[in-house]
Amino acid sequence: MMVVMKEGASEAEVQHVIDRLEKAGLGAHISRGEFKTVIGVIGSREDISKVPLEAVAGVENVIPIQKPYKFVSREFQSEDTVIEVKGSKIGGDTFAVIAGPCSIETEEQMTEAAEKAKAAGATFLRGGAFKPRTSPYSFQGLGEAGLKMLAAAGKKTGLPIVTELLDVRDVEVVAEHADVIQIGTRNMQNFILLLEAGSTGKPIVLKRGFGATVDELLMAAEYVVKGGSRQIILCERGIRTFEKATRNTLDLSMIPIAKSLSHLPVIVDPSHATGKSSLVEPMSLAALAAGADGIMVEVHPNPEEAWCDGPQSLDLKAFAGLMEKIKPIAAVLGKKV
Amino acid sequence: MMVVMKEGASEAEVQHVIDRLEKAGLGAHISRGEFKTVIGVIGSREDISKVPLEAVAGVENVIPIQKPYKFVSREFQSEDTVIEVKGSKIGGDTFAVIAGPCSIETEEQMTEAAEKAKAAGATFLRGGAFKPRTSPYSFQGLGEAGLKMLAAAGKKTGLPIVTELLDVRDVEVVAEHADVIQIGTRNMQNFILLLEAGSTGKPIVLKRGFGATVDELLMAAEYVVKGGSRQIILCERGIRTFEKATRNTLDLSMIPIAKSLSHLPVIVDPSHATGKSSLVEPMSLAALAAGADGIMVEVHPNPEEAWCDGPQSLDLKAFAGLMEKIKPIAAVLGKKV
Amino acid sequence: MMVVMKEGASEAEVQHVIDRLEKAGLGAHISRGEFKTVIGVIGSREDISKVPLEAVAGVENVIPIQKPYKFVSREFQSEDTVIEVKGSKIGGDTFAVIAGPCSIETEEQMTEAAEKAKAAGATFLRGGAFKPRTSPYSFQGLGEAGLKMLAAAGKKTGLPIVTELLDVRDVEVVAEHADVIQIGTRNMQNFILLLEAGSTGKPIVLKRGFGATVDELLMAAEYVVKGGSRQIILCERGIRTFEKATRNTLDLSMIPIAKSLSHLPVIVDPSHATGKSSLVEPMSLAALAAGADGIMVEVHPNPEEAWCDGPQSLDLKAFAGLMEKIKPIAAVLGKKV
Amino acid sequence: MMVVMKEGASEAEVQHVIDRLEKAGLGAHISRGEFKTVIGVIGSREDISKVPLEAVAGVENVIPIQKPYKFVSREFQSEDTVIEVKGSKIGGDTFAVIAGPCSIETEEQMTEAAEKAKAAGATFLRGGAFKPRTSPYSFQGLGEAGLKMLAAAGKKTGLPIVTELLDVRDVEVVAEHADVIQIGTRNMQNFILLLEAGSTGKPIVLKRGFGATVDELLMAAEYVVKGGSRQIILCERGIRTFEKATRNTLDLSMIPIAKSLSHLPVIVDPSHATGKSSLVEPMSLAALAAGADGIMVEVHPNPEEAWCDGPQSLDLKAFAGLMEKIKPIAAVLGKKV
Repeated sequence: MMVVMKEGASEAEVQHVIDRLEKAGLGAHISRGEFKTVIGVIGSREDISKVPLEAVAGVENVIPIQKPYKFVSREFQSEDTVIEVKGSKIGGDTFAVIAGPCSIETEEQMTEAAEKAKAAGATFLRGGAFKPRTSPYSFQGLGEAGLKMLAAAGKKTGLPIVTELLDVRDVEVVAEHADVIQIGTRNMQNFILLLEAGSTGKPIVLKRGFGATVDELLMAAEYVVKGGSRQIILCERGIRTFEKATRNTLDLSMIPIAKSLSHLPVIVDPSHATGKSSLVEPMSLAALAAGADGIMVEVHPNPEEAWCDGPQSLDLKAFAGLMEKIKPIAAVLGKKV
Repeated sequence: MMVVMKEGASEAEVQHVIDRLEKAGLGAHISRGEFKTVIGVIGSREDISKVPLEAVAGVENVIPIQKPYKFVSREFQSEDTVIEVKGSKIGGDTFAVIAGPCSIETEEQMTEAAEKAKAAGATFLRGGAFKPRTSPYSFQGLGEAGLKMLAAAGKKTGLPIVTELLDVRDVEVVAEHADVIQIGTRNMQNFILLLEAGSTGKPIVLKRGFGATVDELLMAAEYVVKGGSRQIILCERGIRTFEKATRNTLDLSMIPIAKSLSHLPVIVDPSHATGKSSLVEPMSLAALAAGADGIMVEVHPNPEEAWCDGPQSLDLKAFAGLMEKIKPIAAVLGKKV
Repeated sequence: MMVVMKEGASEAEVQHVIDRLEKAGLGAHISRGEFKTVIGVIGSREDISKVPLEAVAGVENVIPIQKPYKFVSREFQSEDTVIEVKGSKIGGDTFAVIAGPCSIETEEQMTEAAEKAKAAGATFLRGGAFKPRTSPYSFQGLGEAGLKMLAAAGKKTGLPIVTELLDVRDVEVVAEHADVIQIGTRNMQNFILLLEAGSTGKPIVLKRGFGATVDELLMAAEYVVKGGSRQIILCERGIRTFEKATRNTLDLSMIPIAKSLSHLPVIVDPSHATGKSSLVEPMSLAALAAGADGIMVEVHPNPEEAWCDGPQSLDLKAFAGLMEKIKPIAAVLGKKV
Repeated sequence: MMVVMKEGASEAEVQHVIDRLEKAGLGAHISRGEFKTVIGVIGSREDISKVPLEAVAGVENVIPIQKPYKFVSREFQSEDTVIEVKGSKIGGDTFAVIAGPCSIETEEQMTEAAEKAKAAGATFLRGGAFKPRTSPYSFQGLGEAGLKMLAAAGKKTGLPIVTELLDVRDVEVVAEHADVIQIGTRNMQNFILLLEAGSTGKPIVLKRGFGATVDELLMAAEYVVKGGSRQIILCERGIRTFEKATRNTLDLSMIPIAKSLSHLPVIVDPSHATGKSSLVEPMSLAALAAGADGIMVEVHPNPEEAWCDGPQSLDLKAFAGLMEKIKPIAAVLGKKV
């Protein structure tokens, strides 16, 4: 941490900062520029975070130097984390494809989606049983009955299943059925839920908050680690910007950034990011080319009749077409699908 | 809802949309422009929301006409909601002042903060016992012990107390002590928590998500209503933008907008919005002038020693100074403090 | 400037940075933390800006310490700049009111607007002769003929006039008629135009780019100084964010920030920021309370018939009503209108 | 255009809107919903834009249906525009590679950059002679002397050259030397400059403003058409968002969107978007996979010594490495480099 003093800060003010640092067991290293004095603070992340120097007289601002996360950082673990569930991998030289409908509706829908998605090359099956909806008047998911339909479709096809956890009180029932637990974008900073999800020890797909920075995403992952799981998959799904031509703005440059800061795999959800089925294919291919470890796409046997997110869902034929384009590009990039 | 067809959409495509609408019990009203056909949809909010027409062939986009919220809307209730707790009001011709430290630390700190805040003119006492922190390594609050200190300070001064609920499993203990329950910015779309908070029937301060629109804030309020409470106070606390000179960008124009769309009172938190104590006074006065029903400010006996958010906290003298400026401006505007 | 080296940067890499600094005549001051080495760079702004160290091996990032502007900074001049034109002031203890129509349409329109605005308390008259329009098919302004109408209305009422300069080739004709030259939001980083506007030596209203930070606004002002004018009025007019309930998000916290960083006066344009006439009054009062040195508002004798920006223009009665609210609040704040 | 009336708007208010439309020669088509009345407006873009109905009593809002641009729209021209200069193409089945240094420094630098870029596969040469710099104290470019160096390097290698126009007074000298004229991000809404650039009849690379929507980019292109050139290349270069891990957020989803709305080719500048050389390769590949018609990358013989933008420039070896990855992916996608 560097403490930048105001131009004209007095000697007493500088000394007061140093005193406070020393009282907290931290080292201070003074650098006097032409106009401003900067005090380098030496010590551990935890100790430093307890001294709120911005509120001290004469201090202009405080600049963090160390990243605030630890276990998820590339410095902590240099090799890539590779997650494997029932034979399907995410990370390393594998490009994972998580496909399925936004919400679980019926056994028939899930079975058809699962079988055709698998035939086309999907490696995980997704489906929502608990749905976070902006409106209390929208369909909120089938709950445990849905989980069972999803699990049955997973069993039938051999695909591991991914589903969202919304409520800490559902953690047991979700963990009982799900192979991978998803934390949605609106819950990325629901720290209570992160801890509980982590406590299952299961792999966690952690979706980036639509208003969250990459650093905050990694801090959220650190909560999951604290909860008990190190099997975390980061998921870019678009951030909120002034541009309204797409629902959110997909931030693909976060892929190489997150992968340089962290050892965790990074996947992309082009369906929620764009909100438009016509953009799913180009954004999936772009994610692959940018170095993503996989995609999560909404696929529905009949998007026009979907109970949720129809406009952004691929039908099964379009999904098969997408897989046909992914394969040769992945091959060029040295990735297996 | 208006369904805009693509230029060159076929008659069959237009008819298919109409058929789908009629199947769903909705009326259709066709308007043919020089280039595009627009289909007006007639029916209730709920019925309309079940027909996802964006996924249908020939449809360019779908434009909602009705607002998606109901009970919190100005159309549903034209007169302002005024909330009264233990003699302190929010809404109507009262300008409420909710003051107190970011986090509850000790009985002495709470008592001093409460007594001096009250003497200066505060009408509610705030303090955090459960703290949502970006880092799992930061202080997470004193929990129930803190709640008791806050309640004691409230009792001593007669000020009603406001505190944050983070975990659905804490709803009973928080409701036992708190007069007003706060939902934090990161939980604005934690719909499970909104329902539980509402179920207490207590007044709820609902902070705007830093990435949320005013419409989404009102939808979140609608969840609280569904949970069981209509005593909701909307709280603007800054939104996330490209400008980093302040922690967030305080959106004061949302005050007249929210008050025209809804009957609920609107308050402003200048402390979290700006992250700088020097901005709390000008932004508090601006909030008052813009028509806010109150402010929520962080006040600490000794900001330099605060366990949390020191840089944005006012000391007790600065808070008293702020109150001296608020009073004459409120008087000009016809508001009581 | 502080150069932060990567964790694990080699001694040779650190030395290479130091060598480069010394070659450029800059001092280097090394601070070794537990994990990272930070090199403080000592020297002038200009010299430092010529050494692009981010591209050097082993460097993680480079953090500027000094602000990049000079003449417009509060350090360069501690007392407030007060601008006076034909007896009307901006800055100091005066709250300036610049009013008039978006575009100059006819002599009658200008005369009526000018006379009634003056009667209500306006201290400057505005009107656009050259209009930057998003669409090439929209009305682009009356040009020099409009300037003459504006000048005539100014002469008749004694109000100094403010008008926008769009094209460097118009600088002479605009300077001939205008008392104050406006640079619009889309041209805030049209550096060529800034230099030319400055070369007139006239007071310049510099509108913040809707995508620009406060620091960039001050750098743009520095260009005007370089051009030849130190009489600069900064104008906040809203920034672009994800929130679409208003056209832009008015950033009122920039007022105290800009005034702490710079000695220049700061005014607010609530008309363009919000795009809605109903928001002009609350946002004008909020700007005043936040410490602004004035407002610039669109006022039109008949907004419904305005050739441009009718939806955000006040009619003359609403403007008079606004002035009646401004006066007592200004009095409380110790400001003259 | 649809005019949405407020809930409870009176018959007289509805009739007043219709009267105004008819007076302007426009048709009106009324649709009465359960709560609100919507009036469809029928007529030409130009006629409609002259009736500012938002300011009229009883009107809630006005929703445009038609896109505001014409000549650049896909409806106006369904086949893709392909631009060819001295044998190098942009658009259609060609993936163009525009490479070169940020600023022209010396003949040696330009010659080396040009020859090695060409050898690696670049199809256009870029270099800045007039530089828009945020700071007036930064290097502003070599001007005409630089243009001549660029032109010489272009002649020597046979590569067509691309350079930025900043000042309308330079249009002749720039047009004399440049094969393709670039309009920078800060000038995307400098409408005067757009018209002048268009008047040369040359191909124009139009960079998206970092605060501009895709619709505004297309409106800016419409100005270039009005000026006289239909040979326009749209260039995505990142937009400004809250995320500061990259300089800007590259919006790759704008590629399929712009290409569906318009027949113009779309290229991507990953260097300015990200500000980091390490991100140039993944973002270039992603742009290709997303359907871009080319990239514009900063390449410098020695980025560490670059006078400008060193941190985001590739060295010649890294550029050659990038080209080796582009070729096989382009082949899979059926594109020629």
